[in-house]
Amino acid sequence: MISVVILGAGNVATHLFKAFSASNHTEVIQWYNRSYSAISSFANAVDTTDNISKLKMADIYIMAVSDDSIAQLSKTLPFENRLVAHTSGSVSIHDLDKKNQRAVFYPLQTFSKEAKVNFSEVPICIEVTEKKNLQFMKELAEALGCTPYRITTEQRQTLHLSAVFVNNFTNQLYRIAHEISDAKSINFDILKPLILETAKKVQHMSPYTAQTGPAKRNDKKTIKRHLKQLENEEHKMIYELLTASIKKTHGQR
Amino acid sequence: MISVVILGAGNVATHLFKAFSASNHTEVIQWYNRSYSAISSFANAVDTTDNISKLKMADIYIMAVSDDSIAQLSKTLPFENRLVAHTSGSVSIHDLDKKNQRAVFYPLQTFSKEAKVNFSEVPICIEVTEKKNLQFMKELAEALGCTPYRITTEQRQTLHLSAVFVNNFTNQLYRIAHEISDAKSINFDILKPLILETAKKVQHMSPYTAQTGPAKRNDKKTIKRHLKQLENEEHKMIYELLTASIKKTHGQR
Repeated sequence: MISVVILGAGNVATHLFKAFSASNHTEVIQWYNRSYSAISSFANAVDTTDNISKLKMADIYIMAVSDDSIAQLSKTLPFENRLVAHTSGSVSIHDLDKKNQRAVFYPLQTFSKEAKVNFSEVPICIEVTEKKNLQFMKELAEALGCTPYRITTEQRQTLHLSAVFVNNFTNQLYRIAHEISDAKSINFDILKPLILETAKKVQHMSPYTAQTGPAKRNDKKTIKRHLKQLENEEHKMIYELLTASIKKTHGQR
Repeated sequence: MISVVILGAGNVATHLFKAFSASNHTEVIQWYNRSYSAISSFANAVDTTDNISKLKMADIYIMAVSDDSIAQLSKTLPFENRLVAHTSGSVSIHDLDKKNQRAVFYPLQTFSKEAKVNFSEVPICIEVTEKKNLQFMKELAEALGCTPYRITTEQRQTLHLSAVFVNNFTNQLYRIAHEISDAKSINFDILKPLILETAKKVQHMSPYTAQTGPAKRNDKKTIKRHLKQLENEEHKMIYELLTASIKKTHGQR
């Protein structure tokens, strides 16, 4: 049984707490947060504390805190030579204080308080400073049913950037479609199967091969009519820029 | 049993042929295409023809042809007062020659030759000129296991535009992420669960509620670093424009 202490109380911390608690191979022996109120509702399920000096001995300390807090919090840890990991997609492993053994445990998935996450489908990006900890980190990911990937800091930062494109930006396109269709009293449900199919398609074919539509065909008439339909200047700009991008990718003028 | 004649041989025509053939409630009695070679491989499965004057009597003629061909092809149909539907997201129902009873049967889904489509999840947008045909059109959609929605021409054109955002533009964001991660030798598989989860999330919550990430948080440090990481000017512009759009949606300066 791997013993885990979780530090932080955001979305990632909360989802990790639940996942590590549910696994038969891991046990959350303590949950620390600077502000006690954020974790007080879990006091019956786990030892909760806001006192950093009272951290228990554990196999790993997982810091799921904001990027800006990682360096400072790792400095204040009241012990040395234990295994400490952060969960950030962008912070260097070297931001962790070197008095401890350092690692990264970055789950590449979108976490919001409202939605449940099926951890068996979450890729975990792993980095270590001491090679001897690599196998342990992989086992920790596998204990949640996750697939571990060993990647470099640069690769992790590129994945974090790529995730903004496929998650935040994609979601904003859904939002714009929601606005456009709402304005004409269209039920957004009609678009949901298309949203899902678009994501499913690239699970087994490349986005390049999966592309269809007026921009790929260079269907100027449709593009012109769409631009005329768009009332919002910002939506027009996004339409033009992404149409140009598709044309370029598919060799249209 | 509803008898169907299909006209056209593109992706939509081919998927509709397969779906109508598979249904117990419909029968494709003929498949017409201007160029015979495109449908010749189906000659054993259905009566195929490139001779418009030899079209058989059927309950409905479904024209799954390019937008620009609809008006002309509907004029050349050698009969009157039968039910003729097109499958376009953008062409007016009035582009169909008025010598026949007119309808629209627009499946809001992405169709490519390579990918199978589960028709039971395809919304069908229906429009008719004669009210008496509405029920028949709904039954035709339901025969494929689809959900029919009666919508106006304007709503259909708005859906077509919205579909470009959630399908073509979203897919281009996947493509950009593929390019960015390929450049650092990252396995694109790592991003696939996130792509799927992002689409799944908005099946049961609004895109507004589902949003996360640096733009929503107005995390200037991360945004700045991401822009620095992007080497391609076009990718930078897309990053900036969509970041500004998210900030605006979520009330950030």
